[in-house]
Amino acid sequence: HLARVPPPLILALLYACAILIGAALLMLPVSQNIPLSWSDAIFTATSAVTVTGLVVFDVGSGLTLFGQTVLLFLIQLGGLGLMTFAVLILAALGLNVGLTGQMYLRDDLNQSSIYQLMMLVRTIFKVVLICELAGAALLAVPFTRAHGFWQGLWEALFHSVSAFNNAGFSTNSNGLISFATDPVVNVVIPLLFITGGIGYVVLHDVARSRRWHRWSLNTKIMLLGTAALILWSVTMFAVLEWHNPRTLGLYDSFAERIAVSWFQGVTPRTAGFNSVDVAAIHDSTAMMFISLMLIGGGPTSTAGGIKVTTFVVMILATTAFFRRQTELHAFGRSIGFDQILKVTALIAISAILVFVAIFLLAATHDGHFLDICFEVASAFGTVGLSRNYTDDLNGFGRAVIIAVMFLGRVGPLTLGFFLATRATPRVRYPKGVIYLG
Amino acid sequence: HLARVPPPLILALLYACAILIGAALLMLPVSQNIPLSWSDAIFTATSAVTVTGLVVFDVGSGLTLFGQTVLLFLIQLGGLGLMTFAVLILAALGLNVGLTGQMYLRDDLNQSSIYQLMMLVRTIFKVVLICELAGAALLAVPFTRAHGFWQGLWEALFHSVSAFNNAGFSTNSNGLISFATDPVVNVVIPLLFITGGIGYVVLHDVARSRRWHRWSLNTKIMLLGTAALILWSVTMFAVLEWHNPRTLGLYDSFAERIAVSWFQGVTPRTAGFNSVDVAAIHDSTAMMFISLMLIGGGPTSTAGGIKVTTFVVMILATTAFFRRQTELHAFGRSIGFDQILKVTALIAISAILVFVAIFLLAATHDGHFLDICFEVASAFGTVGLSRNYTDDLNGFGRAVIIAVMFLGRVGPLTLGFFLATRATPRVRYPKGVIYLG
Ligand SMILES: [K+]
Ligand SMILES: [K+]
Repeated sequence: HLARVPPPLILALLYACAILIGAALLMLPVSQNIPLSWSDAIFTATSAVTVTGLVVFDVGSGLTLFGQTVLLFLIQLGGLGLMTFAVLILAALGLNVGLTGQMYLRDDLNQSSIYQLMMLVRTIFKVVLICELAGAALLAVPFTRAHGFWQGLWEALFHSVSAFNNAGFSTNSNGLISFATDPVVNVVIPLLFITGGIGYVVLHDVARSRRWHRWSLNTKIMLLGTAALILWSVTMFAVLEWHNPRTLGLYDSFAERIAVSWFQGVTPRTAGFNSVDVAAIHDSTAMMFISLMLIGGGPTSTAGGIKVTTFVVMILATTAFFRRQTELHAFGRSIGFDQILKVTALIAISAILVFVAIFLLAATHDGHFLDICFEVASAFGTVGLSRNYTDDLNGFGRAVIIAVMFLGRVGPLTLGFFLATRATPRVRYPKGVIYLG
Repeated sequence: HLARVPPPLILALLYACAILIGAALLMLPVSQNIPLSWSDAIFTATSAVTVTGLVVFDVGSGLTLFGQTVLLFLIQLGGLGLMTFAVLILAALGLNVGLTGQMYLRDDLNQSSIYQLMMLVRTIFKVVLICELAGAALLAVPFTRAHGFWQGLWEALFHSVSAFNNAGFSTNSNGLISFATDPVVNVVIPLLFITGGIGYVVLHDVARSRRWHRWSLNTKIMLLGTAALILWSVTMFAVLEWHNPRTLGLYDSFAERIAVSWFQGVTPRTAGFNSVDVAAIHDSTAMMFISLMLIGGGPTSTAGGIKVTTFVVMILATTAFFRRQTELHAFGRSIGFDQILKVTALIAISAILVFVAIFLLAATHDGHFLDICFEVASAFGTVGLSRNYTDDLNGFGRAVIIAVMFLGRVGPLTLGFFLATRATPRVRYPKGVIYLG
């Protein structure tokens, strides 16, 4: 009986189907300029549907215009979330979604009430359309100048959709390095991926009211957390890389270095575009990137990772413990035991997943340990930055990264639904003491 | 007023004093065979008091018999815990410890009630004396055979004290590699450090009763957790290193390889002895070692790391979340909200500490990223294994490792007491909803 299967499992299976259909489309000769293996196609389709952006071949030259359109379609599908996508199509056809559809949608959008869900879907549709078209129009200016009218126009659309969905795919093999100091690219692309990465729930809340005190706890945490992380990462990138001759040192002026720092500082949490050579950054900067990639973006967004909210609640729980508080709260709202349990579960599952993936790659591949850690963190946060290690993956390594991208996107907690059975305790237990220190 | 200062801060300051006095003693010409700098002496004293075992010079040839005795004294002091040590001395002199002394002792031993604390101290004293003397007598057999009577006797005592306190210091520059297949060394040294590393509270509990159902929750978790981790690590070491020509591949017989696997499998959680060249193990094995070093041993023991109990509660919380349980329990005892908060705080503080330390070393040192991660994890778990990276540390790097060893030993939560102020919330807040991804 379908109704008995938990929605997260159904969603995971639907994502898997979407990936396989996408891979099959990429395997059509009409998609390819170069011969692709099934391994290439499945990796690329997974990377697109999970909006990661890791690539095992240059998609700009390797795929035809048709192939790139398939890729863009997979990105949009993955970015919106599968159920949101389906509901949008149904709603556009004037069909009724029904209660079951709304239930799945609720899970896909991480909403805890069905109330006003259709409102949210309508908001999403409007926001996506407006942002992507406006982004494409603005990006057309630098791209048509660089690559001619039609090619430039296509690339503007491709990068706009890729940026809004935080996919990080680029038609240029070296990413956006040639546009590193272009003002339009430095403003429009980060605006697109920050908007897309902050979460539809937050956008909806902000659109409904401009007043701080009317926003939900989730919105407040997301906005403040995102602002703090951006400030931190941009500053740290500038400080660490200022004199690196292979990154910021390439640019002479103060303004150019700040522009590149801005772009590289906002990109590692989930967007994954690069305007410098990521293999050339210092080990310390790579370490900072790894921590940002593991944190990721907002829930109900196109981001992966443990999510900004989880990170903030972890920090809140830590300070609460040291302040000897018996209750956890933020902005005048309490945070319950179940939420702390969920945070602990998320962090535990994520840590184990990342550890196991790094372990499996280290056991089966040569190469620098840092590059392996970077690749796994990038896949888990569905970021897509790479220190050129994706090419070195063998078949088993690709399978590991595919699994990590998939779990990073559908949420590491989905893994738990596969592993665990449900049970309700029938008895209450006396308190036990454990030494934790 | 001294009574107002929280015990963890007092303890941290006392440990710092012990380290400085130890360093001063090592700086005496009578301690040295080779000229030592203050940096060498402070690093070595910290490594001894925190029972880590990382060294920046060969203590067997660099220190005189007097210097080695100072080192052994620092190890015993650090292994027992400073306050336990003080109470033992006072009790041996027939003096009354008093309530304040018992309070500090309570914190040092991580006991949540003062009840039967003196009982525990008496148990500790007996256990330490019996184990270390028995260990020295047994180890005298292989050590006198290898290095002559008096030298062998001294080495037997040194290794017995070092093992029971999980210090991992050895008078041989290559550790115990030359005794890798010696049956006495393979039985006695692991027995000593497992006994010392499981925690005095557990030993006391087991000594009081042999019945499973009469043991405390803490004892059950520690015994089962330790057994599971040992089984896991010994098996994994054998599987991963069986054919490595620089480690297990050096030995021809099945029994020898199993013996070495046993020794290297039990050592990385906190003991830090090595019977193989740690720089020669595979990256995947190193990765497994890192995870074991971060977990560490038991609370109220000589171990560092986040502790086995913290790890087990994290796993329990994770499974409880997936089973949709509203309450956390194990072996018929419930685990409260405050405990989960403490686990979250511990993991958060530890993760941040380890990340920052790796970041600082990566930013200021060349060398392999894996070796840096390994060194930091080893310091945090007060393990003392190294991929020969300790020698490459500059002055700043030594300071970082000293800080990590110190916090790993006094407990990462002590860091929180420095950072946070106490406060009790005066109002109750309505529940807020956060999406956690
Ligand atoms: K991405
Ligand atoms: K040790």
